[in-house]
Amino acid sequence: MQALVERMSAAIKPGAVVTDVGSVKSGVVRALEPLVRRAGGRFVGSHPMAGTERAGVRHARADLFEGAVCVLTPTAATCAEALRLVTALWRGVGGRIVALPAELHDELASRASHLPHLLAAALVNYVLDPAQPANQPDLCASGFRDTTRIASGSPEMWRDIALANREHLARVLQAFLGNLREFQQALEKGDEGAIVEYFKQAKQRRDAWVARCWPPERASGG
Amino acid sequence: MQALVERMSAAIKPGAVVTDVGSVKSGVVRALEPLVRRAGGRFVGSHPMAGTERAGVRHARADLFEGAVCVLTPTAATCAEALRLVTALWRGVGGRIVALPAELHDELASRASHLPHLLAAALVNYVLDPAQPANQPDLCASGFRDTTRIASGSPEMWRDIALANREHLARVLQAFLGNLREFQQALEKGDEGAIVEYFKQAKQRRDAWVARCWPPERASGG
Repeated sequence: MQALVERMSAAIKPGAVVTDVGSVKSGVVRALEPLVRRAGGRFVGSHPMAGTERAGVRHARADLFEGAVCVLTPTAATCAEALRLVTALWRGVGGRIVALPAELHDELASRASHLPHLLAAALVNYVLDPAQPANQPDLCASGFRDTTRIASGSPEMWRDIALANREHLARVLQAFLGNLREFQQALEKGDEGAIVEYFKQAKQRRDAWVARCWPPERASGG
Repeated sequence: MQALVERMSAAIKPGAVVTDVGSVKSGVVRALEPLVRRAGGRFVGSHPMAGTERAGVRHARADLFEGAVCVLTPTAATCAEALRLVTALWRGVGGRIVALPAELHDELASRASHLPHLLAAALVNYVLDPAQPANQPDLCASGFRDTTRIASGSPEMWRDIALANREHLARVLQAFLGNLREFQQALEKGDEGAIVEYFKQAKQRRDAWVARCWPPERASGG
């Protein structure tokens, strides 16, 4: 990002508003805000929470941002007019604006997006390991397909995300493993009550979230 | 299953073929094969690998089994004619037959289906925990939705599956955690090469599996 803005900086007109769509924000905002300011422009960080595992203009969709959350990460130095313009840009393509400090965005994104990606990749690497029995892939059905969809995303992009958000992701992974260990213990003890509670809680939390964030008209969207 | 077949047994006609659609097979086959034989019938275990997180006849779909793997678990005692009939039943609704020993089915299903379910539930329980920051659910987008879809399945059914396949699931979870720890170490060291290789391997393995098992005409199916 930094190298890109350095190359762009001669072309930035006085007062121009620059934004980005990076998945990790703290480092980007820290690096780009002063760079853009020195070039005469105004920077506002954006992260539209939408996309699929497919990359490139061939997979563009006119309704990609319809109903999608778009996080903006203004700082104390952000120009109010620039923030209004970037808000209008994302609202114009259907986005729902959530303004957050960049650091909080990165913590929340490590749970909501980076951890799920890692788990999908780990699941594929483990289950589709050629060292497993020959019929293993035959038994992977639509549940496996959907649970692992995001593992087909760009490895280079996900490397960059994991490294840029390394501290949050490491902490979140540790906490997640602690949660999983609760289930592991219930399973080892054969604790029916604890096991059904674990699955009930998951169903209740997910169903409530789906009802709130994925109304029927949006539910088929990527 | 056992209690159900005991109630059915008076109604089983001589030579009748009985099958089931249970997700864990060893215990079912062990219990039902002799029960059905004593009632004068012939038992063949089935596990059609299809379905969604929705339960009940309201969510029935005529094409549910189209292209889906259906595992049959014949034993040394299985009647060849009964096996042909059950094979024809599943082929008749579009299933692809894979015959496996019940024990091997349970091992493969613990990786392909039961572990993904557990991870989806764990992800929801951790990320959508009300103790997380207020904006946490807003940052969960379509990747999170798909990765966790199966966590909306029936808690009681999944409790029964987890308990019936407890030994395989516990072993598989342990092995999966070992795989995940490799990534965790690469992340802690900031090992760019190992991280990108991990994501590349996942993308390659999943893309190859999707190309083989989900041809375009099937890709939109549940």
